[in-house]
Amino acid sequence: MPAPSNLVINPTRLWETLMQTAQFGATPKGGIRRLAASEEDGQVRTWFKNACEALGCTVQIDRCGNMFATRPGRRNDLLPIALGSHLDTQPTGGKFDGVLGVLGALEALRTLADLGYETNAPVMIVNWTNEEGARFAPAMLGSGAYAGIFTEEAALGAQDREGTTLRTALASIGYGGPEPVATQRFQAMFELHIEQGPILEAENKTIGIVTGVQGISWFEVTLRGQEAHTGATPMHLRRNALLGAARMIEAVDRIGLANTPGVASVGLLENRPNSRNVVPGEVFFTIDLRHPDAASLALMEQQCRTALSAIAGSMNLDLDQQRTWHAAPVLFCPTMIECVRKAACLAGLPARDITSGAGHDAAYIAGAVPAAMVFVPCLNGVSHNEAESATLEDCAAGSQVLLNALLAYDSQFA
Amino acid sequence: MPAPSNLVINPTRLWETLMQTAQFGATPKGGIRRLAASEEDGQVRTWFKNACEALGCTVQIDRCGNMFATRPGRRNDLLPIALGSHLDTQPTGGKFDGVLGVLGALEALRTLADLGYETNAPVMIVNWTNEEGARFAPAMLGSGAYAGIFTEEAALGAQDREGTTLRTALASIGYGGPEPVATQRFQAMFELHIEQGPILEAENKTIGIVTGVQGISWFEVTLRGQEAHTGATPMHLRRNALLGAARMIEAVDRIGLANTPGVASVGLLENRPNSRNVVPGEVFFTIDLRHPDAASLALMEQQCRTALSAIAGSMNLDLDQQRTWHAAPVLFCPTMIECVRKAACLAGLPARDITSGAGHDAAYIAGAVPAAMVFVPCLNGVSHNEAESATLEDCAAGSQVLLNALLAYDSQFA
Repeated sequence: MPAPSNLVINPTRLWETLMQTAQFGATPKGGIRRLAASEEDGQVRTWFKNACEALGCTVQIDRCGNMFATRPGRRNDLLPIALGSHLDTQPTGGKFDGVLGVLGALEALRTLADLGYETNAPVMIVNWTNEEGARFAPAMLGSGAYAGIFTEEAALGAQDREGTTLRTALASIGYGGPEPVATQRFQAMFELHIEQGPILEAENKTIGIVTGVQGISWFEVTLRGQEAHTGATPMHLRRNALLGAARMIEAVDRIGLANTPGVASVGLLENRPNSRNVVPGEVFFTIDLRHPDAASLALMEQQCRTALSAIAGSMNLDLDQQRTWHAAPVLFCPTMIECVRKAACLAGLPARDITSGAGHDAAYIAGAVPAAMVFVPCLNGVSHNEAESATLEDCAAGSQVLLNALLAYDSQFA
Repeated sequence: MPAPSNLVINPTRLWETLMQTAQFGATPKGGIRRLAASEEDGQVRTWFKNACEALGCTVQIDRCGNMFATRPGRRNDLLPIALGSHLDTQPTGGKFDGVLGVLGALEALRTLADLGYETNAPVMIVNWTNEEGARFAPAMLGSGAYAGIFTEEAALGAQDREGTTLRTALASIGYGGPEPVATQRFQAMFELHIEQGPILEAENKTIGIVTGVQGISWFEVTLRGQEAHTGATPMHLRRNALLGAARMIEAVDRIGLANTPGVASVGLLENRPNSRNVVPGEVFFTIDLRHPDAASLALMEQQCRTALSAIAGSMNLDLDQQRTWHAAPVLFCPTMIECVRKAACLAGLPARDITSGAGHDAAYIAGAVPAAMVFVPCLNGVSHNEAESATLEDCAAGSQVLLNALLAYDSQFA
């Protein structure tokens, strides 16, 4: 049975909800500062809990503060189908990153409730704790603990810069729940999110059908030459570490360009001694390589190592390069991806397949149960910034596709 | 009348003097911390004053703390011929920068005294205050005030980071003298100094016949692109400020190589926001251009401006480039340069003409009276560092050439 096409979300209600909750931690520049397990996070959690209970959902909370709001279905022997993301933000974050995924899900459930529509399986909204990693490192602690990437103990023991643990912080806002992590089960999860990149906007697409998350390899590179006086050292007697780094930055860029859709970036660089009249003797920098395909990512790594060694050798520089992080590519569930594709089609929205460049709760959850994601555009691809912006129309489109995908997936249990 | 060749300095005595005074402010790593007008500077000044008076010199001190030790000559109607440099050091400085110029001069006068040799003109040793600029900015305050680059008031009002003025600091060590700056006159100044660069060592030369000081132009450059997520932003949609800076660093290096003996360097670079997973949105860096010839320096500036504009334009980056400092090249006195050349020849030492890449007291003094310099090698060109090193033989060679040059210049008054 195809999903009914008369289930249409209410764009204005969704937008008002986004703007209303944006007051919890609102910044003067129009963003949100709502760090995980902060007072403001407590406020939005209580708002969210009340809103879900008003729809007839049962809200449960686990020890890591993950919130699960369940709406019963026709067959409560089935595990719920989850729609999840996060309500915490960066210190100077925007109004949409994560929040749209939770409130877009809320709007979907409100739409079901408006029409008294009963799904086959129960439906669940999940608010994952500390997705941003801005207060407690690493990121995606709640979903990571759920998926067994971290132990519950490790997640709760994570400390902020003042030495407060996540356990203590959750207790202080009343959101450290009684249940061990992963007690609340669900069978699959869709996550709606802003793209946090410029691709949809550049191609005038409203919906990104997210097929997976790129694999990531991070490197740390230290390059050593010889500190020397800029005035007294002829060009041919220099061992200039910054010039070496410049050539490596160029090489990394070329490797990115040669391995589309992969990307390669130098984001962080420290120059030493960093003085106007000293030829740099040492440079530290990082490399971030990403590719949706594991073999291609491995090839990029190899090209990088080779290029850096060749440059260092030709300039008589000492090179130390270490891979410090690696995450294999994540492929989302093909069945769920097809549900998203149908959902966009049903809504008459221009869509394209896309790979997520950033990590998301759904990337960890995909290791535990089937998962998939829906992207909508954000202005100039800007995110993690108070200037982060998405239109009412695109937010509504995302919520509609999330609802349509949920119903498409649920139709298998008819 | 040629200078007598039997006036030979005592290498061991010079070395012992260098090592003995290195105890005033000695650091555990074998360097010296002797900031201008500090307690340690007071100690070495008193040692120096006593050593000069033991030779029969009269020691006078001006308000800026510059010390003038005068040994009478046969014709005291003539202004003295000065040998000068500085006894202050960097915070983690070496044992030779500046110190060799003062103690090498002391060894020259001791040699004259040993043999009872009477010069035609009086001879003077000068210890210039705060050459390093490490405690009080800018550098070369004492010689700059003498030469009229700064007023005496400005020099004495210079403050260290604790807000202590040079005036107060000199008074506290008893070296703020009674005489206005430039009361003590001299007719010419030779300065002996370590090279602080690698040229002499690389070419196995013991003596650098310094013909002048390079002109300098400093630029500050700010490059703005678009901060973006490293994972979510395809290569072709980036405006990567660090990649632009890398290309500019390469261009600056090429300009240096193309304008030998000029040099071109990027010494300081700040990358923003400097995060592993953010494509850099803004980079600030400095450019240091030097050339002994004014027209060539101007050409390098023009090449730099053109190259940077072209790179920024091709990458859609916003560019701001400002010249923040310019010092014209200094040419030393041809007569005195010839005296240094003869002096090296007489001592049988391998020598070459060289341009100073760094500023020195002699560069300011050259604007007031004739001046010239003698360089000796230092290990690996390293200076402003506790690892700064020069051999006994090279220090002795420098002192001998200083003495020979003094006598060659003095011979015109026979």
